[in-house]
Amino acid sequence: MKILFQCDYNEGAHPRILERLAETNLEQTVGYGEDEYCCRAAELIRRKCGDDTLAVHFLVGGTQTNATVIDAALRSHQGVLCADTGHINVHETGAVEAMGHKVLALPNRDGKITARQVEEAVLAHGGDEHMVQPKMVYISNPTELGTIYSRRELEEISSVCRKYDLYLFLDGARLGYGLAAADNDLDFSTLAACCDVFYIGGTKVGALFGEAVVIRNEALKKDFRYFIKQKGGMLAKGRLLGIQFLTLFEDHLYEQASGHAVRLAEELRQTFRECGYPFLVENTTNQIFPIMPDEDLKRLEEQFGFQYERKMDDSHHAVRFCTSWATREENVGRLKEALRGLK
Amino acid sequence: MKILFQCDYNEGAHPRILERLAETNLEQTVGYGEDEYCCRAAELIRRKCGDDTLAVHFLVGGTQTNATVIDAALRSHQGVLCADTGHINVHETGAVEAMGHKVLALPNRDGKITARQVEEAVLAHGGDEHMVQPKMVYISNPTELGTIYSRRELEEISSVCRKYDLYLFLDGARLGYGLAAADNDLDFSTLAACCDVFYIGGTKVGALFGEAVVIRNEALKKDFRYFIKQKGGMLAKGRLLGIQFLTLFEDHLYEQASGHAVRLAEELRQTFRECGYPFLVENTTNQIFPIMPDEDLKRLEEQFGFQYERKMDDSHHAVRFCTSWATREENVGRLKEALRGLK
Amino acid sequence: MKILFQCDYNEGAHPRILERLAETNLEQTVGYGEDEYCCRAAELIRRKCGDDTLAVHFLVGGTQTNATVIDAALRSHQGVLCADTGHINVHETGAVEAMGHKVLALPNRDGKITARQVEEAVLAHGGDEHMVQPKMVYISNPTELGTIYSRRELEEISSVCRKYDLYLFLDGARLGYGLAAADNDLDFSTLAACCDVFYIGGTKVGALFGEAVVIRNEALKKDFRYFIKQKGGMLAKGRLLGIQFLTLFEDHLYEQASGHAVRLAEELRQTFRECGYPFLVENTTNQIFPIMPDEDLKRLEEQFGFQYERKMDDSHHAVRFCTSWATREENVGRLKEALRGLK
Amino acid sequence: MKILFQCDYNEGAHPRILERLAETNLEQTVGYGEDEYCCRAAELIRRKCGDDTLAVHFLVGGTQTNATVIDAALRSHQGVLCADTGHINVHETGAVEAMGHKVLALPNRDGKITARQVEEAVLAHGGDEHMVQPKMVYISNPTELGTIYSRRELEEISSVCRKYDLYLFLDGARLGYGLAAADNDLDFSTLAACCDVFYIGGTKVGALFGEAVVIRNEALKKDFRYFIKQKGGMLAKGRLLGIQFLTLFEDHLYEQASGHAVRLAEELRQTFRECGYPFLVENTTNQIFPIMPDEDLKRLEEQFGFQYERKMDDSHHAVRFCTSWATREENVGRLKEALRGLK
Repeated sequence: MKILFQCDYNEGAHPRILERLAETNLEQTVGYGEDEYCCRAAELIRRKCGDDTLAVHFLVGGTQTNATVIDAALRSHQGVLCADTGHINVHETGAVEAMGHKVLALPNRDGKITARQVEEAVLAHGGDEHMVQPKMVYISNPTELGTIYSRRELEEISSVCRKYDLYLFLDGARLGYGLAAADNDLDFSTLAACCDVFYIGGTKVGALFGEAVVIRNEALKKDFRYFIKQKGGMLAKGRLLGIQFLTLFEDHLYEQASGHAVRLAEELRQTFRECGYPFLVENTTNQIFPIMPDEDLKRLEEQFGFQYERKMDDSHHAVRFCTSWATREENVGRLKEALRGLK
Repeated sequence: MKILFQCDYNEGAHPRILERLAETNLEQTVGYGEDEYCCRAAELIRRKCGDDTLAVHFLVGGTQTNATVIDAALRSHQGVLCADTGHINVHETGAVEAMGHKVLALPNRDGKITARQVEEAVLAHGGDEHMVQPKMVYISNPTELGTIYSRRELEEISSVCRKYDLYLFLDGARLGYGLAAADNDLDFSTLAACCDVFYIGGTKVGALFGEAVVIRNEALKKDFRYFIKQKGGMLAKGRLLGIQFLTLFEDHLYEQASGHAVRLAEELRQTFRECGYPFLVENTTNQIFPIMPDEDLKRLEEQFGFQYERKMDDSHHAVRFCTSWATREENVGRLKEALRGLK
Repeated sequence: MKILFQCDYNEGAHPRILERLAETNLEQTVGYGEDEYCCRAAELIRRKCGDDTLAVHFLVGGTQTNATVIDAALRSHQGVLCADTGHINVHETGAVEAMGHKVLALPNRDGKITARQVEEAVLAHGGDEHMVQPKMVYISNPTELGTIYSRRELEEISSVCRKYDLYLFLDGARLGYGLAAADNDLDFSTLAACCDVFYIGGTKVGALFGEAVVIRNEALKKDFRYFIKQKGGMLAKGRLLGIQFLTLFEDHLYEQASGHAVRLAEELRQTFRECGYPFLVENTTNQIFPIMPDEDLKRLEEQFGFQYERKMDDSHHAVRFCTSWATREENVGRLKEALRGLK
Repeated sequence: MKILFQCDYNEGAHPRILERLAETNLEQTVGYGEDEYCCRAAELIRRKCGDDTLAVHFLVGGTQTNATVIDAALRSHQGVLCADTGHINVHETGAVEAMGHKVLALPNRDGKITARQVEEAVLAHGGDEHMVQPKMVYISNPTELGTIYSRRELEEISSVCRKYDLYLFLDGARLGYGLAAADNDLDFSTLAACCDVFYIGGTKVGALFGEAVVIRNEALKKDFRYFIKQKGGMLAKGRLLGIQFLTLFEDHLYEQASGHAVRLAEELRQTFRECGYPFLVENTTNQIFPIMPDEDLKRLEEQFGFQYERKMDDSHHAVRFCTSWATREENVGRLKEALRGLK
């Protein structure tokens, strides 16, 4: 049996979550997220963000959440600016376009875009009705390449968005791992203050599944549940989402689970570095992108699962190793040993 | 605390499913439904249907499944015929239309439509390119009103569909409860043979969530996973679906859970009848639609949850009571007692 | 060569329009409807409606105009109420659904719906996010069956729309013929005051093609040209539309052309009546719907083109005869003669 | 009054077309493109292409035609490869995305893409259902930058498309001007043989409006008229399109009109060159893209209309001058004189 490092959703849920689901299993509640557990989880999240006017909704998965938020926000002639590496631009089978909206891709730098790029894109459009009107900015934190936005970068983007009346939407599918990074200076309050809407990923950070959407902008709150239902994100047994987020946000489980992954990633990163492998991108979260000779990769593959990211030249690939809340110290140990053995 | 009879998703999952999720929780598997559990569950379902060429896919919820199947099947100018009471026509916030397809509603009779109605609709269209082309028939079994199709009715509809090159799609969100009905003469093999595509509901029949789509028609098999992904139905930890359906279809749990609900519904139905309440519709599955005086309903509401279905006149409503795999004998006993006490 | 009465678009354009196109043909203007002719035509229409705040846009055809206006007005979870006989519901190949919006059909009475039906539909929806939210009312004047709304009926519908925050959209593809009817009490000012948006049909009333959209509601004015462009209604040589509407609205050509058709229709209607043919519906505009024995229709078909509307029984059909701005007196004479000869 | 060179649709139609419309104006025909004129025009085009199995349809404008063809060809999970400068990617307000399809942009070289780029894009996708599946290639000839494909380039792209089962769609909005270019080696037969579908632009080459879609691939022929209707491209008085294309394709009017424009463009190009202005791109059709100092442009603007294309640096812009079938020799003379006067 291989040890899998290919993604952060190779296991089930944090055991505390499963216990909680078992304890509450035969209770009767109303459906569709209007139960007590969802209410309490939403309340906890609002408190964490320090803003009791926020709307909080629970959806099942990331692609669905992105499509739902974007379709709720945009009219047909409006598009969403994002990094060309952005998940919505590359890895969601055109879900945003299937809802009728153009993704306006901007060249990324280590997975990120800047306030200046946003401003230039708006000015280049210039009100021409033959072109799609930019109306939203989508960023991920951490990005697809595991990098994070600094507080200052986020505030600058937020400020440009307000200047030009664009919505700022932050995809936090791996948010916990970003907040746990050594060089992070963001927190929930800043996110809630800077973004019109963002979400806190559960699927990749300890839950069986689930993403918590947090909406600050009043215009986006209106009728949002209609969109959740229409896009298939309204779980009949909605309490399953409430119970999971309640468990994650009580007693700091979310932070602990994230911190565990980031710490082990840092250990691994250190080993890759020691072994002399360069990185596709420098980052500090739970994803590592070493560039390795194909023959080394072939040997590693006998024991470990990881993901091919990009062909660098005829004999090298950049690959991805992920840790998660569930990664075992002993498996990290084996991988470190194997890496050292390659030399 | 009220006893809830308002729907069949007021509880979590059958305890055996939760146990299974706990047992497998820290195993590592690949994502997106390509794991061993999904493979084995699909294989079990194929065997149950007696056709090893069937494609089986697992999605999260019903609205999502309907929209995904319909969008995968239809081109932009084609529509789907269904009963005017059909779930896709009334209770999915226009999810089918949001994908660009017209729902062509036909007048229902006790929630059902007939082969003859389908044929008439096709002939009335007559190849006129100014009208939406009927290309699919959507039926539910049981229907929204808890009625079921007989084998003969289903075969007739299937036959008309083949005559006119329409896809037949059966929504089996509550399929178990239909198959467990006393007067049912359908089985999985007949369903697989008659339908181009159908699904087996898990959410309402013992699972935390999940619907198993079974595709017979080759044209619908092609690229179906793209549609699951795009519509947000591809669960990252897809094994959660595989494990649940595996548990339901090993050892006849699905049939047992369904039979339990139908038996208790029959008991309740008998009591309503004895108390002299007429029914909005006669049926034999897990939903009961008595017509009751508003003052009786008011008294019942103090102890029980149920759903208002339709206003009949100034002092009567038709309401819905549901049983499920989770309904307790003792709660049925209390409701029977309360009904008798109303007289 | 048969004489065609089957529709009101069997000929080209009013000769004065062709002359005007020829006169201006080699002038150079900017494109996309931003030329002087479009400006002047819009100004004339605003004046006619007695409201200089109206936005006026010119599109090519009716289906396109309906889809453009409706898509510009609705968010994804919202639908448009209309008569089940409405053009958007039956004869536009699902153009509205293809844009992602559900058409919520109400039973028609002679092609019309009432304020009361609208109110009931809104109340029946009742804010339930599982159902499409009614947000617009679409009516045609004249309707598909050639009937017209009275001023009072229109004001009542308008009033309900404002009460429940619905947009009122009036399709005036044959508007001229409605305004020219003997029992009409509507005028352009009332239309502009009652509707959030309506359009004045050119295609069927003297132009080669073209529909003039008139928008009163500020929310619908914003970015409307983006929608025209995206839906393919922005003509490169937009002046062709401006020139045509300028010609129609200078010197009352629109009213004269419409009046001509309605007068001849009344003559024909009188003859049908004298010959003892009943009507599918009583009306006063340019469409006539007599119910006739199939053998009579067969004989008429040797000389005349008309349209089969509905099978009434095994030996009778309701058919449609149309007059238009181009109908010749002598052809009406021949048809009258033929009708009398059938007896 | 300025002399306009900003586009090729500043005038009406070739006078012979207007005459023909006037001559036929009061004839009665059936609607929606099923009249005799459309039949004859389609027949002429088939003959020109040397393939009597081709389907030919007439639509009103280019954006509409692109969206109609692409939506008719693609399922929801499929996208269309095109140059990043492609009209559908930049200047149609997201019409393709509004129909639910992703435009997969490839870096252009002088407005063109290569067979190799197409192949690489297909291989990069590699059957991954998380990414949009490339299924169509869209090219324009001439391109947005006035360049043309050689026969060999087109055949190579066609060959790659067949290898990977992609549709090849050629936008010929300015096709006449491409075929008239001095270095062109394409003809109608080659276009029809290489493309699955292409269109012959009328709007920019002598007609009031209109695009003739030519379909070779059987899969795209099926039900195409439904798509025309649904997308708003089915003109009620369809004969207007038939009459125009009949006139253009009888007696070689299309070629003559195109040749006139290309000859005058060549004269102008020569003058720009003599005056020492470099070009954004070298081409041989009716569009010219000189790079000029802003002060020269400012002076030219007093007398002439042209279009700003791209800012090159703080004191230079690339601009566009177009000729057309309607351009007058004397106006070209004046522009040449003005250019020489700038020096």
